[in-house]
Parts: sequence; C-alpha cells; structure tokens
Amino acid sequence: MALKAQVLYDFTAEPGNNELSVRQGETVTVLDQTVGGGWIKAQNSSGQTGLVPEGYLQVGSSGAGESRSVGGAYVSNPTEGWDSQGYMYTQQAAGEDDDGEWDDDWDDQSMGGYRGDYQVDEEGGASGASTHGPSVKISLNKFPFSKGPSPEVFLLAKPPANSRDRLPVYMGEVGPVWLYPLAPLDCVIADPKKESKLYGLKSFIEYQITPNTTNRPVNHRYKHFDWLYERLLGKFGSALPIPSLPDKQVTGRFEDDFIRMRMEQLQAWMTRMCRHPVVSQSEVFQLFLTYRDEKEWKAGKRKAERDETVGPMIFSLIEPEAPELDPAEVEQQCELYSRFTKSMDEGVKELLNVGNTHWKRFTGPLPKEYERIGRAFRNLSTVFISSKYPGEETLTDALTAAGKTYEQIAEIVAQQPEKDLHFLLETNNEYKGLLGCFPEIIAVHKAAVKEVDRLVSAGRINSNDRKFMNQRISCMSYSLHAEMNHFHSNRIYDYNRVMQLYLRQQVTFYQQIADKLRGALRQFTTL
Amino acid sequence: MALKAQVLYDFTAEPGNNELSVRQGETVTVLDQTVGGGWIKAQNSSGQTGLVPEGYLQVGSSGAGESRSVGGAYVSNPTEGWDSQGYMYTQQAAGEDDDGEWDDDWDDQSMGGYRGDYQVDEEGGASGASTHGPSVKISLNKFPFSKGPSPEVFLLAKPPANSRDRLPVYMGEVGPVWLYPLAPLDCVIADPKKESKLYGLKSFIEYQITPNTTNRPVNHRYKHFDWLYERLLGKFGSALPIPSLPDKQVTGRFEDDFIRMRMEQLQAWMTRMCRHPVVSQSEVFQLFLTYRDEKEWKAGKRKAERDETVGPMIFSLIEPEAPELDPAEVEQQCELYSRFTKSMDEGVKELLNVGNTHWKRFTGPLPKEYERIGRAFRNLSTVFISSKYPGEETLTDALTAAGKTYEQIAEIVAQQPEKDLHFLLETNNEYKGLLGCFPEIIAVHKAAVKEVDRLVSAGRINSNDRKFMNQRISCMSYSLHAEMNHFHSNRIYDYNRVMQLYLRQQVTFYQQIADKLRGALRQFTTL
Repeated sequence: MALKAQVLYDFTAEPGNNELSVRQGETVTVLDQTVGGGWIKAQNSSGQTGLVPEGYLQVGSSGAGESRSVGGAYVSNPTEGWDSQGYMYTQQAAGEDDDGEWDDDWDDQSMGGYRGDYQVDEEGGASGASTHGPSVKISLNKFPFSKGPSPEVFLLAKPPANSRDRLPVYMGEVGPVWLYPLAPLDCVIADPKKESKLYGLKSFIEYQITPNTTNRPVNHRYKHFDWLYERLLGKFGSALPIPSLPDKQVTGRFEDDFIRMRMEQLQAWMTRMCRHPVVSQSEVFQLFLTYRDEKEWKAGKRKAERDETVGPMIFSLIEPEAPELDPAEVEQQCELYSRFTKSMDEGVKELLNVGNTHWKRFTGPLPKEYERIGRAFRNLSTVFISSKYPGEETLTDALTAAGKTYEQIAEIVAQQPEKDLHFLLETNNEYKGLLGCFPEIIAVHKAAVKEVDRLVSAGRINSNDRKFMNQRISCMSYSLHAEMNHFHSNRIYDYNRVMQLYLRQQVTFYQQIADKLRGALRQFTTL
Repeated sequence: MALKAQVLYDFTAEPGNNELSVRQGETVTVLDQTVGGGWIKAQNSSGQTGLVPEGYLQVGSSGAGESRSVGGAYVSNPTEGWDSQGYMYTQQAAGEDDDGEWDDDWDDQSMGGYRGDYQVDEEGGASGASTHGPSVKISLNKFPFSKGPSPEVFLLAKPPANSRDRLPVYMGEVGPVWLYPLAPLDCVIADPKKESKLYGLKSFIEYQITPNTTNRPVNHRYKHFDWLYERLLGKFGSALPIPSLPDKQVTGRFEDDFIRMRMEQLQAWMTRMCRHPVVSQSEVFQLFLTYRDEKEWKAGKRKAERDETVGPMIFSLIEPEAPELDPAEVEQQCELYSRFTKSMDEGVKELLNVGNTHWKRFTGPLPKEYERIGRAFRNLSTVFISSKYPGEETLTDALTAAGKTYEQIAEIVAQQPEKDLHFLLETNNEYKGLLGCFPEIIAVHKAAVKEVDRLVSAGRINSNDRKFMNQRISCMSYSLHAEMNHFHSNRIYDYNRVMQLYLRQQVTFYQQIADKLRGALRQFTTL
C-alpha cells in the first residue's frame, strides 16, 4: 500500500523547479522520501507529481498529539515536552548530503513573512506563521536530554583530555564571565549571486562572507548557514542561546528586495555569533569562516558532524576559576534569570506589537491622509485661480505650495518606518529570538538538579559520585552566569545603539517636516 | 379627536426644564401648539407631558413628500424646491413674542454636534445631522420668490423715494463693488451669563456684545441672534449670502466648553456680518448692536418686522454707477459665478472631510499609539533595572526618559487639532455656509430673467416696461458682481489668514516634537 501524507501548509510551486503545489488538508501519495535536502517527491490526487518540502507534510497517519512539524522555535515550557517528544537527532545529523549538493535549494526565507515576523498577537503569544514548516529539526534538537547521552552520562562524564577545547569562566567585575578574545571576530556578508545547478533546474543565492581575521572571502549558500546553525545548536544549545536563522521562504525568493533583506538578516545573525566568545572561537564556526578549499570544507564538515561533545556534554568543558556553588544558590540564580528573561520577552513582544501597528499606520492611512490634505489645498487653489480675481495669485501660489508640501510630507511619512522603526524592530526581533532560547537553557539546569535528586533517592550513586555531580551542576551555573552577563552587556550595547539610531532618525523626521512647513509658511504674504 | 405628531428626531429633555424626552418614530399627542418659542406641549403614550421642540415633530399625518422639518440649510438645486415648498414666512415673521419673552429658551446649540458639523460624508453630501430640527423656518425663508411680492411686482417696482436706503454699486479696480464704510464696523462678544426666568423653569445664556462704534455693550440671547438672522435673511437673502447661525442644540447646552464654543461661533458670524458693507450699515443690524434701552429695542424690532423691502425687493435699492448690462452678459456672469461657487463648495467639503478624518486620527488612535510606544520603552527599562547588572543605569535612565517623551508626545498630538485644525475647519465650515447660499442667490437671477421672458412671450408687457425690467436685471447683475467681489476679497483675506495660522501651528507642533526627541536623544551615552 502506498504511503500517504497529510499536507500541513499551503505550498506554491516555484515555476520550472520541478515542484508540486499543494493545499493545506490535502492528502498526497509519498513517492520518494530519499530525495534529500528537505524535499519529498509526492503525487496528488490528480496524478501530478513533484517535490514538496518535507516540513509541509505529515507522513503516515498520526492523529494523536501534536504533529512533529509544528514544533516551533519557541517552547515556553519545554520540560513538558521532554518525555513526549521523539528523538530525531541521529537520523539527520550526519552527512546526508555530503556526497553531492544537487538535492538542496532551501536558499531562501519568507519575504512576505517579513512583516509577519513582527506580528505578535495582542495577547503577546508568538505568531505561528513564522515558525512553521521545515524548522522541525531545530525544535527537536532543542530538547538536549532526549538525545545522545542521558543526564547520568553527562553528570558522571570526565572532562575531555584536550584542554584546547575547555571553556574557562573567569571572575570579572560583573561576576562570572567567558574568556573574550583579544581581537573581536567580525565578518561582512556581501555580493549575493544567483547560481544554479542541474542545468538551471534548481537555483540558489550564494553569499560572500569575509572575516576580519583572514580578510579572505568564502562563499556560502543559505543551506550552509542552516548547517552551521544546526551544528551550533546541537553543540551549544543547552548552554547558550543560538537564535534561529531568518525564516525560510518559498515564493518570491529571488526578488532583489528580498535578497537584500535576507542578507541583512544573515549579517545580523553572523555578527551576533561573531560577538559570542564561545561560539566565535569554536572549531565549526572557524571552519565556516576560514576554510580554504572544498576539501578542507568537506573534511571539516564531516568532523563537526561526528563531534560528540554536544547537548549537555558541553558543560563538561566548563572550567570555572571560582569555588563550587551551593545547589540552592544555583536554583536561586535560575529563578532570577528565568524571571528576567520572561519579563524581557514580554516587554520585547509588546514593543514589537505596537511597532508593527505603528508601521502599518505610517505606511498606510497616515500618508494617505497627508496626501488628501495636500490635494485638498491644491484643488482649492485651482478653484481660486479660476476666479480670475485680481491679486488672486498672492494666495494661490502659496496655497499650491502648501498643498505640494503636504504631498511631500506624505512621502516622507510613508518612507520613515524603513529608516527608524525597521532597526528598532529588527533588534527587538533578534532579542525575541534569543529570549526564546532561555526557557530551555534554564530548564536544562533544573532538569540536571532534578536528575541528581532522582539518582540520590534511588540510591544509585555513592557520595563521591554525588560530590562530582554537584561540581558539574556548579559548572552549569557558572556557564549560565557567564552567559547572562554576556547577554546583559550585549543587550545594554544593542539597546543603547538602536535607541540612539531610532531617536536620531525620529528627530530628523520631525525636523524635516517642521522645516518643510516653515518653507510653505514663508510663501504666504504677511497680512 | 386629539392631534397627533410623529417624532422626527431623538430629543432628550433637559432636567428640570419642563421638557419631554421623545424618540424618533414615536407618536405623541399635541396638547398645545401655542406655547411659542419653537416649543410644542405634547403627551407621550405613557401619559407623560412636557415641551418638545416643534422642529422635532411632524404634526398631523403627512406621508407624502419631504417633511417640512427636514428642509436643511443647504439646498443644492433650490429651483426644484420653489414650487413644492410651502410658504411659512408670514405665519412666523411678525412679533409673536413681542409681548413677552417667557416662551423662549432656544439659547443653545449642539456641542455634541460640533464635530458633526465637519462630518461630511465621503460622497461630499452635507451631513443631515446638523441641519435638522428647528432650522425649518430658515430653509423656507430661503425661497424668496415663494414669499411676499411676485417676481412681476419686483420687476416693475419703483425705487424707494428715500435715497438713504439705496445701495450704490461703484466701479472699483476689480469691477463693481459695494460702498464700503470708511471705518469698518466690528464687535466683541464676551461675558456669557446664565440667566433664568419663570422662577428658574427656563434658563438661557445672555451674551454681551460691544461694537467698536459706540463702545457700549448690549446684551442679547441666542434667540435675539436668531431673530436678527431671520431679518437679515428675509431682507438680504436674495442678494447676499446670509450664513446660518451655529446650530441649535438641546442637551448639554450649559456646559462651559459648549458655551465657549457657541460664543466663538457667534463671534465669527457677527464678525462676518460686520465686515459686510450692506449688512453692517442696515438699520436692523445697527439696532441690534446699538439699541439704548428696552423701549428702543422693541420699537426697532417692530419696525424691522414690518419692513417691506425684503426678498427680491432688495434689488430695487441697487443703484449702479455704470451703464446697463446686456441680459446675455448677465446670464454669462451667473454661469461663471455658479461654476465657481459650486467648485469651491466641493473643494471646501473635501477639505472638511479629510480634516475631520485627520482630527479623529490625531485625537484617537495616533496618541494612543505614541502612548503605547512610550509605555513599551518604560516597561523595558523597568525590566532592565531589575537585572541589577552593573552600569545598567547608563541605558535605563535614558530609556525611561525616551518613554516619558513619547508619552508627552501622545498628549501633544491629542491636543494639536484644537490648536490648528480647529480654525482651518471653522473657517471652511463658515465658507461652506456662505457657499450654500449662492445657488439660491444665482437662482433668483435666473428666475428673474426667466420671468421677463415669460411676461414678454405672454404679451403682458409693453416695450417700455421691458426696458425698465432689463434695467432691473442689470441692477441684479451689478449686485451679484459686487457681492462676488466682496466674497473674493474676503476669501483671499480669510484663507491667507487661516493658512498662515494653520501652518504656523503645524510648524510649532513638529518642531516641538523634534526638540523633545532631541532632548531624549541627548540622554543616551555616546557609544
């Protein structure tokens, strides 16, 4: 019997790309699940065949519980999901597309969904629109204890012999901090090029990324960024917030505006990763930025995919210089950070909410109104001119100018959000992504503490092991401290910067309108 | 059988004023139509009795055609109405309340309807809300040929012997003009006082009006303004636009804001009348402004009410210094002015339309949005403070200040329309009122020309009479010319003034916001 799949979301085929359009709720027959690159070959009830993104399909009949495909990047209470969620990590981790790249073209992300990113509903919940679809792998990877080593294995694991991999935590002025590199890493993404393969059947965008360390550009497609994201999430996701990449999109993905927007978002993501002392110094991140040839890239990829120090095992690398913390203190810190990130998440979402409303008003009804006012003045002026009354032009010249001024103001108003709100919303959107990672990071800590309690009460560990485990939990807490301090210092920098940018642009905006109106006023004869 | 009346509009009784609340569509029993002052004593189906404004009731069953009570001040095609409209003038003109003032308390006008004045619907039609009710007398008086002398009587009437009453038209630089007084008349309305009579059963507002000629204040109630309006309309309405008084209102008529608004509108109306060389020099207008005691006022009132040079008879007073015009030329001028006033009427209504929309946005959603933005910044700041991260205040002090700034901007935005749009809309509303009079003024001319043709083709006049009639029509045309020139020069002055006022306030508004935001920006530390 042929394998069936339920269509979860509408998908519109890119013309000439061997894809199949499907509608939500439709049932299709699965022809080939091994085409790779996130695609499934399917046939609809009319007999048409083509490729459909696998995240858009629910293969086989499920019915019970949540669909795996609707995981979503932001899980507010991940502990509830830990037991019920399946473990997909090993099935997808290793070099499935190592031997060729013909299969992949997830090079893009929703342009139409760009504004949708800001659309958080009134109740403050995250919009489902931007998280559906192929992000399934990501969300499942976020439950670290459900994959790879069990908590017990981690809690008893010995630190790796290779000290090069260790992650030291120092006591700085603000408390525990990561070791920051002397020269901060940075990179510039530029020069997006449309490339194609399979004789033009599949097209994609290739970006040029130049790190400040080597100053030598490397080329990457969106799928490589996605690969990097998955590696970083797998390796560091239990300890550090690894924000999602900009959403994928299907239609309109080669429009110039979209490409510019995508590049800007990838740049923001890379800049944030570069700024992180742990991520930026990691082997996989360095590989991505500095590989010299295809051979080195492929070898590095294979190595990264075989990395076993992933998930909670990362805590075995933490090396704090300060004395061990009391478990009660750990719990208190977790609570503190949990409250802070939750409150900030709400604050950020409210700002995104009102910012989005503001954006719509400034690009929609408000400029239309200024235009109507301008046109009303100009129309009146035209009527006045028709009077042929002597000296009429002392009024009508000025009235026409006033009308034109309001029409110009309409344009200024409509273009303003791109100049200020855009950056305010982008920054807050980034923070929404970062904050969405914290509930899970904090849950990892809580689960570890709980696991120790469970092992103790089950009588499965001796006092030596317990001491060792407490050391580990202390390490986790130092890691959380260091990460929160990193988060805070970045946050203060980012919000200082974006608020100044926003206010500076707002000043320019209102000043420009005042000046234009002053010019219009001067046209009138003094009475 | 008791006389019934249909209720045309909702009316809410003023508490303690012996009034009866009625709902549109309700049927009431008429108990007394002779109470006067625009009131009818009625009884509802529950047996409650009280006074209802007569304009709110349709007495007896009518069913056919339009109710008289819905005349409306602006009739776009008055010629169509001339035959079908009844003639109510003589029933109401003469001193019905001469022997006492106990009956009247129409001292007020819609405050709630104030915004409604600006609410012209999208299609540009006048809103019915502001013209319903007791304005019935006004609209019927506006059909001059349906009252008093027939066109024939006017066309053959001899100019009055008393040359003091004549209205000379001179040839100025711009063409025919009225004789302007050397010192322009002006007056100031101030000091509104709540007065009552019938032992407090009826209350009204008395205003103090001081003309610049005598500098001696006189007191008048709204009903006196209304009386003056009716006299001016009756006497000059065929030749000059006599705009309606501010609308009457029933509820909330003693609220301070309303009284201030009413006084401002009466002041605008009086200023416009003072500026008119014909109106301001008329005996009835001078009486209103300069009567010395009750006796002089009553005698003057009686005389004015007996004035027979009303309606089209006014044209018999016109004394042009220039040669007689050709009837074809008259017709052409009529067409020109008709086109101009119609176009300007449309332009003014569009401006009122968009101005009203703008007003609503600036007092409704826009300030709410600025407030939400401000609150979102302040909330984020509060969350940031809770982090207790060292140096946090470098950000949070500035962020809180930025939040407060946007909350202040919200207030500035919400208060702005009162400062600029208010005057722009008031002026355009005045012009809407003036322009609404022109179709009838022009129709009078057309009807006169048509009447001459009719008399000629009926063979009822000899060539001498015809020559005389053509002279009269030429006089009418000079009157129209002079009035249009008066209108144009006032219009240029008024629009110059109101546009400068509007733009000056707009500059201040945007400059103020720019300055406030500059202040907020300065709070941030330079990065």
